[in-house]
Amino acid sequence: MVKIAMLGAGLIGEFYAQSLLGHRSRDQICSVYSRSIERAQAFAERWNVPRATTSLTQAIHDTDSELVVVAVPNHMHEEAVLESARAGKGVLCTKPLGRNASEARRMLEAVERAGVFHGYLEDLVYTPKTLKALDTVSSGSLGKILWVRSRETHPGPHSAWFWDKATAGGGAIVDMGCHCIEIARSFIGKEIRPVEVVCWGATQVHPIDSEDHAIGLVRYENGAIGQFEVSWSFRGGMDLRDEISGTEGTIWLNHWLRTGFEVFSSVGSAKYVSEKSESSSGWLFPVGDEASALGYTEMFQDMLDAYENHSAPRESFYDGYVVNAIIDAAYRSMESKRWEAITIDDWRGKTQAAVRDLEKAQGHSEMHDDAHIVIKREVLPDGTRRLILKNIITEATSSVIER
Amino acid sequence: MVKIAMLGAGLIGEFYAQSLLGHRSRDQICSVYSRSIERAQAFAERWNVPRATTSLTQAIHDTDSELVVVAVPNHMHEEAVLESARAGKGVLCTKPLGRNASEARRMLEAVERAGVFHGYLEDLVYTPKTLKALDTVSSGSLGKILWVRSRETHPGPHSAWFWDKATAGGGAIVDMGCHCIEIARSFIGKEIRPVEVVCWGATQVHPIDSEDHAIGLVRYENGAIGQFEVSWSFRGGMDLRDEISGTEGTIWLNHWLRTGFEVFSSVGSAKYVSEKSESSSGWLFPVGDEASALGYTEMFQDMLDAYENHSAPRESFYDGYVVNAIIDAAYRSMESKRWEAITIDDWRGKTQAAVRDLEKAQGHSEMHDDAHIVIKREVLPDGTRRLILKNIITEATSSVIER
Amino acid sequence: MVKIAMLGAGLIGEFYAQSLLGHRSRDQICSVYSRSIERAQAFAERWNVPRATTSLTQAIHDTDSELVVVAVPNHMHEEAVLESARAGKGVLCTKPLGRNASEARRMLEAVERAGVFHGYLEDLVYTPKTLKALDTVSSGSLGKILWVRSRETHPGPHSAWFWDKATAGGGAIVDMGCHCIEIARSFIGKEIRPVEVVCWGATQVHPIDSEDHAIGLVRYENGAIGQFEVSWSFRGGMDLRDEISGTEGTIWLNHWLRTGFEVFSSVGSAKYVSEKSESSSGWLFPVGDEASALGYTEMFQDMLDAYENHSAPRESFYDGYVVNAIIDAAYRSMESKRWEAITIDDWRGKTQAAVRDLEKAQGHSEMHDDAHIVIKREVLPDGTRRLILKNIITEATSSVIER
Amino acid sequence: MVKIAMLGAGLIGEFYAQSLLGHRSRDQICSVYSRSIERAQAFAERWNVPRATTSLTQAIHDTDSELVVVAVPNHMHEEAVLESARAGKGVLCTKPLGRNASEARRMLEAVERAGVFHGYLEDLVYTPKTLKALDTVSSGSLGKILWVRSRETHPGPHSAWFWDKATAGGGAIVDMGCHCIEIARSFIGKEIRPVEVVCWGATQVHPIDSEDHAIGLVRYENGAIGQFEVSWSFRGGMDLRDEISGTEGTIWLNHWLRTGFEVFSSVGSAKYVSEKSESSSGWLFPVGDEASALGYTEMFQDMLDAYENHSAPRESFYDGYVVNAIIDAAYRSMESKRWEAITIDDWRGKTQAAVRDLEKAQGHSEMHDDAHIVIKREVLPDGTRRLILKNIITEATSSVIER
Repeated sequence: MVKIAMLGAGLIGEFYAQSLLGHRSRDQICSVYSRSIERAQAFAERWNVPRATTSLTQAIHDTDSELVVVAVPNHMHEEAVLESARAGKGVLCTKPLGRNASEARRMLEAVERAGVFHGYLEDLVYTPKTLKALDTVSSGSLGKILWVRSRETHPGPHSAWFWDKATAGGGAIVDMGCHCIEIARSFIGKEIRPVEVVCWGATQVHPIDSEDHAIGLVRYENGAIGQFEVSWSFRGGMDLRDEISGTEGTIWLNHWLRTGFEVFSSVGSAKYVSEKSESSSGWLFPVGDEASALGYTEMFQDMLDAYENHSAPRESFYDGYVVNAIIDAAYRSMESKRWEAITIDDWRGKTQAAVRDLEKAQGHSEMHDDAHIVIKREVLPDGTRRLILKNIITEATSSVIER
Repeated sequence: MVKIAMLGAGLIGEFYAQSLLGHRSRDQICSVYSRSIERAQAFAERWNVPRATTSLTQAIHDTDSELVVVAVPNHMHEEAVLESARAGKGVLCTKPLGRNASEARRMLEAVERAGVFHGYLEDLVYTPKTLKALDTVSSGSLGKILWVRSRETHPGPHSAWFWDKATAGGGAIVDMGCHCIEIARSFIGKEIRPVEVVCWGATQVHPIDSEDHAIGLVRYENGAIGQFEVSWSFRGGMDLRDEISGTEGTIWLNHWLRTGFEVFSSVGSAKYVSEKSESSSGWLFPVGDEASALGYTEMFQDMLDAYENHSAPRESFYDGYVVNAIIDAAYRSMESKRWEAITIDDWRGKTQAAVRDLEKAQGHSEMHDDAHIVIKREVLPDGTRRLILKNIITEATSSVIER
Repeated sequence: MVKIAMLGAGLIGEFYAQSLLGHRSRDQICSVYSRSIERAQAFAERWNVPRATTSLTQAIHDTDSELVVVAVPNHMHEEAVLESARAGKGVLCTKPLGRNASEARRMLEAVERAGVFHGYLEDLVYTPKTLKALDTVSSGSLGKILWVRSRETHPGPHSAWFWDKATAGGGAIVDMGCHCIEIARSFIGKEIRPVEVVCWGATQVHPIDSEDHAIGLVRYENGAIGQFEVSWSFRGGMDLRDEISGTEGTIWLNHWLRTGFEVFSSVGSAKYVSEKSESSSGWLFPVGDEASALGYTEMFQDMLDAYENHSAPRESFYDGYVVNAIIDAAYRSMESKRWEAITIDDWRGKTQAAVRDLEKAQGHSEMHDDAHIVIKREVLPDGTRRLILKNIITEATSSVIER
Repeated sequence: MVKIAMLGAGLIGEFYAQSLLGHRSRDQICSVYSRSIERAQAFAERWNVPRATTSLTQAIHDTDSELVVVAVPNHMHEEAVLESARAGKGVLCTKPLGRNASEARRMLEAVERAGVFHGYLEDLVYTPKTLKALDTVSSGSLGKILWVRSRETHPGPHSAWFWDKATAGGGAIVDMGCHCIEIARSFIGKEIRPVEVVCWGATQVHPIDSEDHAIGLVRYENGAIGQFEVSWSFRGGMDLRDEISGTEGTIWLNHWLRTGFEVFSSVGSAKYVSEKSESSSGWLFPVGDEASALGYTEMFQDMLDAYENHSAPRESFYDGYVVNAIIDAAYRSMESKRWEAITIDDWRGKTQAAVRDLEKAQGHSEMHDDAHIVIKREVLPDGTRRLILKNIITEATSSVIER
């Protein structure tokens, strides 16, 4: 710990304080588990962790540790979470919470029954851009949110188990759709119920059983649409973008391939460019701080602060469960080729009636005169302002020049 | 402090560890000074600082504090640094180090004589993008660096004292040229001596005595050029960009206005968009994490780590002194309207002879055959590969088609 | 020299004339029709057209003219085309060809029966960017096309009739979906049959009967997906983008809002910025040559050249008919909430069997050794090259480090 | 119909012909000259030109032709122009007009004495983006122009003669600086006199006598700065950008590398990507219509229209002469290492007195109250509006919060 005298309390002083009290952690990892003892030990050495083990139970019950971080493959989440709950420890679980809603439901019930702290490690809603965009939306700058497109595509995951349908619980949808779904849900409003899904998915490229490309539309109770696009067959790196469309505005976020960092190299580099980068010479698009751009930094700050303050983090196991419920419906829709209802046993947000009342309160048409509703305004090439009107009796449309 | 059990040591485990041990500081601000007691106290409350004072000496000599951060206006830097050195405390000083090289020199001598830790708070060389770009350059991906353009322009600073020539020591060059100069120097190589400067500057817009717009070229011993562009009359927000050109490649960094975050709002927002933003409706370009985008986060991590490890930080008072020496020559050039030599009393980098040897070692022309040097290769629209040659005897240029 | 009868003198007519007579044309407009004699005469004066009339028949039968350009509202297309065919004149018809496939079918049959030249004025497949991108795709640089997203959204059309469902034949899908569908079809291959569609659409914002926002997926016989996104409720200008994803590459086209032309103005301008622009101060994104960026210039060059050379233009009435058939299925899907088959009475492209043979010929898995198929290659952060494999007997996935 | 003699059949000639005969032209090329009869004949066949010759005189005096287009290397411009003037024919000359101001002056005098039409083929001020940007500036949207940066850099020209100092008249400055200088001049105002230049240039990379990299600042009578940046050692393609800064706004133009056209190809292409492109796989940035993006299309439309209408084109030989005069001063500055005055024998724009009066009329400081001038306004992070003031007596700066 360094103790500091700060001279100056202006704007620069603020920035300095913000950063001085920034990056040097006071927290500690006390035990690490891996299926391979070599990897566990290498990790322990790298991060100064006192105990490395290949026993999940031993790692969880480590007497020093108070909080368990679950970063194992999908098929082990339930076991790890249930054991952590049994041990009475707080637990943070990586995405997706379960391979399906049933698993997620059981994990949620376990931590709630045990009364332990739980956080869902959905990092992408925590990127600094996303947090500021969410803030922009909640301040009303975009009006009512109508549509969110969240896209994560790249040439495919780095570990073998992702490609195995049974272990992972599915393909690109389970792997990345969980991000896109929760991003859209965060912008539309977590209190708004997701009602139904239509989804296309196919195995277009890789020799696997699960889908390597999928697109889905989630309809929310208030009419908003959350669109997810996921692929393991995209070429060119990792395409990580969100588009948010509201009645009063638009937000475009590009998290990875176009962030104001452009490199051309004729000789290239043997070095790592950035996650999922596909080339190492010619035009390259690295990312400054990858952990921050992916939301990890802000996510753990929120999680650990919430844990210490006994408050709720932004993302809980309940959120993870809702996401799994949406994914389950998406898979059903891929099979049935129609919209499928989303089953959430235990809806904790706004009721249908409450949403309808809200919509009614917001809805209002602008009248031009007693007989005409305004459909739209437009400035034409010559600077003229045109008004498109609808006669409320005849329903005929017409246009007038606004003076 | 939270104690954690980490389950999983794969790629995700790495990212998690990186971030878990990220943002929750173990350091502390023990005293704060401001000219205004109200601001000092407000700061103290906001950042949980035990002692607030309007006495610089008292803040510096605060018994708990071991490291002084100087974030006061330019004309107080020397006093604050000299007092810190006297108190035997480590000292971090904001940019520019001095209002001129004489002040900077005295500060450098004071901390070196006292043997205290010193860091120069040049944040912009610490942005995650810049650090990765510097790494890319040092790995050889761009070949030899030929030219760096570093640009910082905005509609003018936020505090009154910046606009007063005597207090600040100058105008836009002292305020922002210091950043641009050190960025270029970092890419070209800090061991390469900056030799001379030509600079244009003028008061184009604001009713002030100092320059509100300036452009300068710094020539380095190895022929590389560092170009700085600074303005307090730019419209549209804060333009913070670097361009690096090497024999084998190019880097373009955009730190502020085009970072993959785009917002359109018809209704706008009463809220803050980002530093120096000039509009609050229409198309807006916020920045995700401003402290990180400006380099503060990584800068203090380096400074505090170096302080604890008794190692040298990336930026020391010597760097601040060199920057001031370059700025002094720039101001002389503005007056004399010619290239001006840079005076560095105590050059600690490579000698002229060493740079020449290095250049000679790197230089080599590619021979096409016994009589011709290759000037250039090009692929033409029809796919043909053309070679431009120079006869080494006659010096005549010609072209041949490569097969 | 081609002599033209121009039917319609609205915004589209203006754009058409601008391009027809663009760049020192040798062609000439001989007659112009408009429902309003004032507009017809003003147009005639502006473009040096000898005869202006409010009689569609008179304009079509104008003895000088040999080619009729149909630029009237959707509900008049059939009448205009049928009369042109009767008059034995060539006919170019604006998009969409019909309000539905039945209308389009009758128009196609009329021109083919009469043996007259016919062109479908689908301008957006003719933008210089799109033409070069199509060329890039046909050269094999992207491998097999898997997915195309084509998006056109803006705050709504400028003329009253668009907003009337009966006149227009629908809402945003008929208005702009026709562009997106034909763009995707062009990249995927016009010889590949579009098989089925799933589509969401809703009236989210405007007080109208037709959809003001819709998203659809068109599945082609070879498994490729064409995704269209259309909206009359987008804020921020006109979002006109295409994304093409193939097994070997990616293309991103931005036709309107981000084309390398960026303006900030604090004082703004009373002048026109660009089509559908929503603001006139702050950050603005004009387009250089709008007629070219929208494809009009290249489209008419192709159409008139084809007319003179008695060859087929890139876009014929048959293409217009196929697009209408896809739109019809999209509207059915909006109602039925399931995938709907596309009915094309007279398919002129590849048969199902031919497509299957093609797919089989292209398909091949890379074997790592006798027992393992390669799923994927990846370069990890440390530079290691990892191979994901699948055992062809057990189907187990695993990874090995490539040396 | 205009009948043209084309002198030169190289890359520029190709581009010229492409645009002259572009888009269904009514104009025709009647004769073509090349130093090589093979190239002349191939060109004639490609573009349907009746007569091909290796005699410059014969091509110029071709009886059918009325307008001569000079597209030969720099050292032949004077001869070609003087012969055309003697023949009493209109003449369009490629850039730079002369290798220096003396040559340019003689050419200007020759055409003016002969009373023939003359146009300076400075294509880059004619790009659709530039024309619209010039229009935006002249409408007042940017206020007074303070600074223009125009940059053209690429890996070096395609023909051998460019690399020969005597033939070309210099290096990168003569080749590309002429574009940048005239672009800046067009934005600042052609009626404002360019007064002096400071310029750095060096041979950093190629084994040649002329400069392969240069940066210059041109100061205009009204205090505005035109900055040119040219290089034959840039890597990554052709960097063709302009930045315009005014008291009320900013314009950024990117003509080549970032225009909304992005391609990733893992397999690459043997085909031409775009002029000066340096790679054919990975991320590529083609240009839609190159002739239009470089201004050729609009330039010839203006030139031929002006020729037919007996009016002045946007760019005349006088403009070419002014540009050469600025380049001469730049070369002197490279040697003298100081600002050098620009010698224009025959200044036809505003006088110094007229510019001063204009400046005085525009200048005005905003008073806050009787004692204070407003230096600047700013919105702070907390939404506060701060005003920076200067006491008109004491000159002290201070700040107040605006309510």
